[in-house]
Amino acid sequence: MPVGTLGTVKSLSPEEVADCGAQIILCNTYHLYLRPGCDVINLFSGLHNFMHWDKPILTDSGGFQVFSLAKISKTTEEGFAFQSHIDGSKHLLTPEKAVETQICLGSNIIMCLDKCIAYPADKNAAKEALELTSRWAKRCKKTWETHTEKENALFGIVQGGMFTDLRRISAHALAEMDFPGYAVGGLSVGEPKEIMLEVADFTLPLLPKTKPKYVMGVGTPEDLVELVSLGADMFDCVMPTRNARNGQLFTESGKINISNARYKNDTGPIDPDCTCYTCRNYSRAYLRHLLMGRELLAYRLNTIHNVHYYVNLVKNMRSAICRGEFDAFKKDFYDKRRSQD
Amino acid sequence: MPVGTLGTVKSLSPEEVADCGAQIILCNTYHLYLRPGCDVINLFSGLHNFMHWDKPILTDSGGFQVFSLAKISKTTEEGFAFQSHIDGSKHLLTPEKAVETQICLGSNIIMCLDKCIAYPADKNAAKEALELTSRWAKRCKKTWETHTEKENALFGIVQGGMFTDLRRISAHALAEMDFPGYAVGGLSVGEPKEIMLEVADFTLPLLPKTKPKYVMGVGTPEDLVELVSLGADMFDCVMPTRNARNGQLFTESGKINISNARYKNDTGPIDPDCTCYTCRNYSRAYLRHLLMGRELLAYRLNTIHNVHYYVNLVKNMRSAICRGEFDAFKKDFYDKRRSQD
Repeated sequence: MPVGTLGTVKSLSPEEVADCGAQIILCNTYHLYLRPGCDVINLFSGLHNFMHWDKPILTDSGGFQVFSLAKISKTTEEGFAFQSHIDGSKHLLTPEKAVETQICLGSNIIMCLDKCIAYPADKNAAKEALELTSRWAKRCKKTWETHTEKENALFGIVQGGMFTDLRRISAHALAEMDFPGYAVGGLSVGEPKEIMLEVADFTLPLLPKTKPKYVMGVGTPEDLVELVSLGADMFDCVMPTRNARNGQLFTESGKINISNARYKNDTGPIDPDCTCYTCRNYSRAYLRHLLMGRELLAYRLNTIHNVHYYVNLVKNMRSAICRGEFDAFKKDFYDKRRSQD
Repeated sequence: MPVGTLGTVKSLSPEEVADCGAQIILCNTYHLYLRPGCDVINLFSGLHNFMHWDKPILTDSGGFQVFSLAKISKTTEEGFAFQSHIDGSKHLLTPEKAVETQICLGSNIIMCLDKCIAYPADKNAAKEALELTSRWAKRCKKTWETHTEKENALFGIVQGGMFTDLRRISAHALAEMDFPGYAVGGLSVGEPKEIMLEVADFTLPLLPKTKPKYVMGVGTPEDLVELVSLGADMFDCVMPTRNARNGQLFTESGKINISNARYKNDTGPIDPDCTCYTCRNYSRAYLRHLLMGRELLAYRLNTIHNVHYYVNLVKNMRSAICRGEFDAFKKDFYDKRRSQD
């Protein structure tokens, strides 16, 4: 899922996001709740009309941004008390409010409010956070059940830090509540990559086999390949969009930085095998020229390429799985990268 | 002509520029000569391929940017000696080099190198500048004639400051050289609007009736209506693009600033009668939201609207002239504005 924090995948039109092959985007409830606010989005009967995007939207609960962005955050049984990072205004985010806000946004996949913890964390803190997350998940489900016309799905989020026994407790508690889908949260919070993959490897099999499994906030192309190997189905990450704006572009043979002087005279596309709008129409030399001049079109053309790359990576993995050829896909994926080294 | 200084109309794809109705864009020779440089653009056989734009391009000579941007500028009979505003490197811009550079860029309309003067200027300085401009125009034409395969046009530029007798001398000297088109330069350099219009009013009738007449670097919608009344055919200005990025949007009833709080809950388009992509798909509330969040899509959607507005203003004037109804058009244009006041 490309990330469209404020109701826009940075620099792209909704048509371009769809042309890249994206079937769903993620928007951030925390940001949209603060600005423009639900009252404004309500005037449009939800985010889809507001931002002119007619495909599914997944919204997060806002919990992670309260944890990472808000000025002051106090956690009680009731919810998060926080101050806006924009104007310092005070707000209370409860599980009920998180769900209601997402319903108001018209989100198609709604995330339960969870409590994320920093890495490293002591086991007691991790345990308390997961228990609170489980109690909040119940409240979220209750709120969702009273509201929903079954046009959206509510996902539970597994917490438990990097502790396998806590992850098991969390996964079992959520599985019992029978959510339409499940997410693994609390990863990509500063832990080493091996640990992230270990936790995912341990946690994913604990979740109901027939339900979608979403690993939040991850990651590099390699991360996605590894996590799909482990059974993950869905991802969101700012990497394709943010890195594009810094000139880092993804190709089958690895990353390139388009601002590098070696591309000054390069008349070829980013990736000769890529079929995205950028690769069909523009050269590396032109993209480098735009980026050096900080031209707005640079961010957009680079973003189109990276989103197209990510979406196609996942599309190709899905297709390889369907053909029963995922192992061959994975070998090929790494071979192409090694050939560049 | 929308302005595409560095080989991109800021924030727009070439397809969007064309969708706005633009038939031609202006690019800046000074900027492109310095970055990426003609050697790079040569690899693409010109700017059209480099930037993926297949309609006409007009390039300026670079003289105005040397005058307004370069760090040091020394004018001799030979040309301008200047230092790049980017890296301080030293360059010499002669009339021959200005034409050759524009031919290398693959420009469809090439401008003669001229010497612009500041406002106010004393008459001697204005006289010297126009005389040099006339001598340079001859050298430009000579260079162009040896090079051209008649696929591009060279325009002469009238100078002479705000002095009517000097403008007459300049216009006659250029008319004698029989250029494919003519420009009025040296306007919009800080003079009051009445003076700009007076000079244009005086100068335009001195130019050959059957040749296109281009007023450089102008202006507001009102300026365009007044200048068309006076016989002008072509314009370039950064106003539609630059103002768009600041949230100032043009409508038939006047300008609006989309960041104004009054648009927070406004579900309507910028202009209900406008048929541009932005007005067909987005509300004022969404555009305001994007701009407040400094989202890249804001600059683009606003630019689409403003370029569409400007191009259609000129298109409507042309059509009114063809129907013999320009006076009625002009009355209507001002009536709509007054109705908002």
